[in-house]
Amino acid sequence: MADSTPASDVPRYLTGDKAGLREFLAKYDVFLFDCDGVLWSGDHCFPGTVETLELLRKNGKQVVFVTNNSTKSRADYCKKLESLGIPSTVEEVFSSSYSSSIYISRILQLPENKRKVFVIGETGIEQELRSENVPFIGGTDPAYRRDVKPEDYKLIAAGDTSLLDPEVGVVLVGLDFHLNYLKLALAFHYVKRGAVFLATNIDSTLPNSGSLFPGAGSMSAPLIMMLGQEPTALGKPAQAMMDAIEGKFKFDRVRACMVGDRANTDIRFGREGKLGGTLGVLTGVSSKEDFVSGSVRPHAYLDKLSDLLGSEL
Amino acid sequence: MADSTPASDVPRYLTGDKAGLREFLAKYDVFLFDCDGVLWSGDHCFPGTVETLELLRKNGKQVVFVTNNSTKSRADYCKKLESLGIPSTVEEVFSSSYSSSIYISRILQLPENKRKVFVIGETGIEQELRSENVPFIGGTDPAYRRDVKPEDYKLIAAGDTSLLDPEVGVVLVGLDFHLNYLKLALAFHYVKRGAVFLATNIDSTLPNSGSLFPGAGSMSAPLIMMLGQEPTALGKPAQAMMDAIEGKFKFDRVRACMVGDRANTDIRFGREGKLGGTLGVLTGVSSKEDFVSGSVRPHAYLDKLSDLLGSEL
Repeated sequence: MADSTPASDVPRYLTGDKAGLREFLAKYDVFLFDCDGVLWSGDHCFPGTVETLELLRKNGKQVVFVTNNSTKSRADYCKKLESLGIPSTVEEVFSSSYSSSIYISRILQLPENKRKVFVIGETGIEQELRSENVPFIGGTDPAYRRDVKPEDYKLIAAGDTSLLDPEVGVVLVGLDFHLNYLKLALAFHYVKRGAVFLATNIDSTLPNSGSLFPGAGSMSAPLIMMLGQEPTALGKPAQAMMDAIEGKFKFDRVRACMVGDRANTDIRFGREGKLGGTLGVLTGVSSKEDFVSGSVRPHAYLDKLSDLLGSEL
Repeated sequence: MADSTPASDVPRYLTGDKAGLREFLAKYDVFLFDCDGVLWSGDHCFPGTVETLELLRKNGKQVVFVTNNSTKSRADYCKKLESLGIPSTVEEVFSSSYSSSIYISRILQLPENKRKVFVIGETGIEQELRSENVPFIGGTDPAYRRDVKPEDYKLIAAGDTSLLDPEVGVVLVGLDFHLNYLKLALAFHYVKRGAVFLATNIDSTLPNSGSLFPGAGSMSAPLIMMLGQEPTALGKPAQAMMDAIEGKFKFDRVRACMVGDRANTDIRFGREGKLGGTLGVLTGVSSKEDFVSGSVRPHAYLDKLSDLLGSEL
């Protein structure tokens, strides 16, 4: 799947190169940002992040914060950005829950009587589905937070409408801290009956407290095993997310640049999306070696994002 | 993995062949039975099942009922057999929960201070672990049937003993109708800290009410995705189950025969276990064509199990 970068294509190191930085920035109107590892790490905002974003905005660049976090709505995510001291607007945030909602409402062509979404996930997904006027069931509804009962099996097997809503045409799986057997059984039967199988993202783990916990991909894993079918993923590096971002911002891909710390997800996301630019930063997961000699390489890289300030624009 | 049966090895059709049946039966002292599809289907016992088992026992054959169902203990399973009119003893039942317990207590060499098992599963597993004096936590304990709390992340990340028992050396995953985020997070962290990752069985689905529901394999799926590691499976067709059966019954594999309706699981289980015989029956999943020209073929096959009565022994 991953487009390998041609071996001749050596990324340009731009830190301290004022002319190079100016030339690079002039090429793009839109900057898509991965957040953790680029703008901040954990709860710590990198020095110069705020000033760098200001510089871009002042020069007329569109800034988009791209996150796979599906538990938060865009409004929730803005609050998180603000708590780190980073000014932002809801319009600048693009989360996998929003991506999923856009994909369902604007890209999927669902029959009139199959427009309802069965949600495995938390409130962030629900808020974004509401913002796109997509009807849904499941999610945080307490009616689904219960044990499976002996009579459920017969009702589900028979397709009884008390448990299986005939209008459900999509199963959307995101991170759900209340995952249970009943939800998995229902999701399985909806897909078997023809519903489209979507995942907000397929990250198997979720970083928290310096360690890892079950991520959204782990919620889809039982269904993938049962169905023998992968979901369409709406988060990075899936191109469905890029399509959704383009659907919203209507930008020219040649004039857009993806900024990230991870070659295999962020840079790959931009490369596979045929963006004009990809910019790696060394404040996160990938190393200089990854960027310079890995199989997926950015067009340019910096020690840190705030090195863009060296353009003195 | 699957040993293909040599192309020259055509299974013998024994229905109505009195001499052939007598010759076949004389070769084996032990008969391992898959149950659903062989002895019964759903809640319906096949005619002649009881008489056939009687014939085998009368002729001094050891009968073993082999089931991947981990939610029931052997005693529970005997009750199920009795409810279908099939006499049985606990000693004749070999379930994946028992197989797992045997494997842990008699085959795994655990350090003195790492003998506790963290269980994802129901009472059947707990009963069998108790029968082998294996200490365990988790399972049906209500303390684990709760939502994950914000403070859990920090405690788990720090390896706090209030949530992570330092004596746990095994994670055993079976079918759990009360699977939740907390159990998955704990299981993940136990394995990351060095615990052995076991699964009672890896059937992705569970038949019920003529349909399919999440099976034990689906409980392991999130962990497999997060860990990038497969569990050692203790149910058919995994050979760890055959080893456990042999460990208990101390039989000569050459003098043992596996009887089943599914080429890919039952017959494969017997073939890979180098048993002297495998016997297919046409009352379940596999067809005559599967048995005669599939990649894994039985030594012999019958229209139905009760055709063994034609031996008139």
